Amino acid sequence: MDCISSTQNKRVRYVKSLQTKPRFRRSERKLVLEGSRLIADALLADGQPDIALYSPEKADYDLIAQMQERGCPLLPVSEAVLQHVSETQQAPGLLVVFQLPRPPMPAVPERIMILDGVREPGNLGTILRTATAAGLDLAILAPDCVDPYNPKAVRAGMGAHFRLPLVESSWNEISRYCRDLAVYVATPSTSTRYTDVNWLDSWAFIVGGEAHGVSNDALELARYPIYIPMLGGAESINVASAAAVILFEAQRQRLAEASQ
Amino acid sequence: MDCISSTQNKRVRYVKSLQTKPRFRRSERKLVLEGSRLIADALLADGQPDIALYSPEKADYDLIAQMQERGCPLLPVSEAVLQHVSETQQAPGLLVVFQLPRPPMPAVPERIMILDGVREPGNLGTILRTATAAGLDLAILAPDCVDPYNPKAVRAGMGAHFRLPLVESSWNEISRYCRDLAVYVATPSTSTRYTDVNWLDSWAFIVGGEAHGVSNDALELARYPIYIPMLGGAESINVASAAAVILFEAQRQRLAEASQ
Repeated sequence: MDCISSTQNKRVRYVKSLQTKPRFRRSERKLVLEGSRLIADALLADGQPDIALYSPEKADYDLIAQMQERGCPLLPVSEAVLQHVSETQQAPGLLVVFQLPRPPMPAVPERIMILDGVREPGNLGTILRTATAAGLDLAILAPDCVDPYNPKAVRAGMGAHFRLPLVESSWNEISRYCRDLAVYVATPSTSTRYTDVNWLDSWAFIVGGEAHGVSNDALELARYPIYIPMLGGAESINVASAAAVILFEAQRQRLAEASQ
Repeated sequence: MDCISSTQNKRVRYVKSLQTKPRFRRSERKLVLEGSRLIADALLADGQPDIALYSPEKADYDLIAQMQERGCPLLPVSEAVLQHVSETQQAPGLLVVFQLPRPPMPAVPERIMILDGVREPGNLGTILRTATAAGLDLAILAPDCVDPYNPKAVRAGMGAHFRLPLVESSWNEISRYCRDLAVYVATPSTSTRYTDVNWLDSWAFIVGGEAHGVSNDALELARYPIYIPMLGGAESINVASAAAVILFEAQRQRLAEASQ
């Protein structure tokens, strides 16, 4: 079979640029997924594939057939080319460019997560994945977060980008989103436990960054500081784990209420 | 000031080997910490420093004084040498070899976490950090986990290695630890929610790995499968986040009981 074996091929260079240049990725409004699991999941969530590079020896032909049905151009490439464009140490057999997903926005969001200066792409993707599973309506990225379409963030998101509406906003816009909501923020300097909150009403929850915690903008917006009790001499937990603890406490309260 | 500027210096090579050779690190029973925050925290938790490499320009002299008080040899080295032995992209000014911590074992552990095939060092460290903050007694590493003293795992642990007792055991030994405990495991194929469990009694909780989930050994040992409800079309969440959700639900129940 005829394979593209040059990294100078126009379309190969295009995909490589999407992988490595955040601004180009953004202006093109694309996102790149690698590996069968992520790609199958994106197709299931109605992701629109734009172009696929695959290794004739290693690709999953079931998935390739699905993309063909959706009219996606399919380019067989050599292993070396696939490794060249891959952002993983061991390139999988399939790499697909998708249009930037736009899951439908809720008319009136009632459970919002706001990310404030989350800089580590793995943490950001992990938090989006958690927020989806906890049943949130909307994720807002405040200024100073890492690019949510960074390859590592997309990988850690495990499909969340295709399911949870995501907007990037200034603090002014964010305060408009939060006008009718109770706004919580996790910080050690308070006496209200996260378990003492009534999470059944509408709310927004601000997650601070790894290095500098919560910003002044966030503290100004959040009327309700809350904390997670720490035992065993620990001072804090990982930011994605803290978000999981709080978002699933909210989910627990809602599911308990629903089953009554 | 006289600085070691050769990467061939005997002690520099020793530290480099500890950083990069898991088996050597293990046989020497050492662990390497980088950066003021982790090192200060380890000293606070009674860690025993063995040897310190520092940059005379960048080091934190407060910490250096603390190590001097504990009789720890202090070696000024060039920036290039520090970067050579560092496992971070931008070496901090201070890198310290500690004796492998051995936090006191509980006489009768009542809250045990068992890690089953957790392969990603960042996840493993993050889970140990969470388990410490959730008030666990003991963490057990089943076979097929990554080295818990891997530099990335230590960094993600943020001091947990010095606070939470940690043992590595065969499944036979693990079953002896669990003899008088209710053993839980998270798996999607069950109808018992993690919030339906009474976490006030003594228990062990098994956390499955990232890629292959829970092993057969674990399923055989765990009498009680539990699941975390997933909404929004999500199938799962990150393993460290799932551990956080469950361990903090157990903490929530205990703290609620204690305050009654």
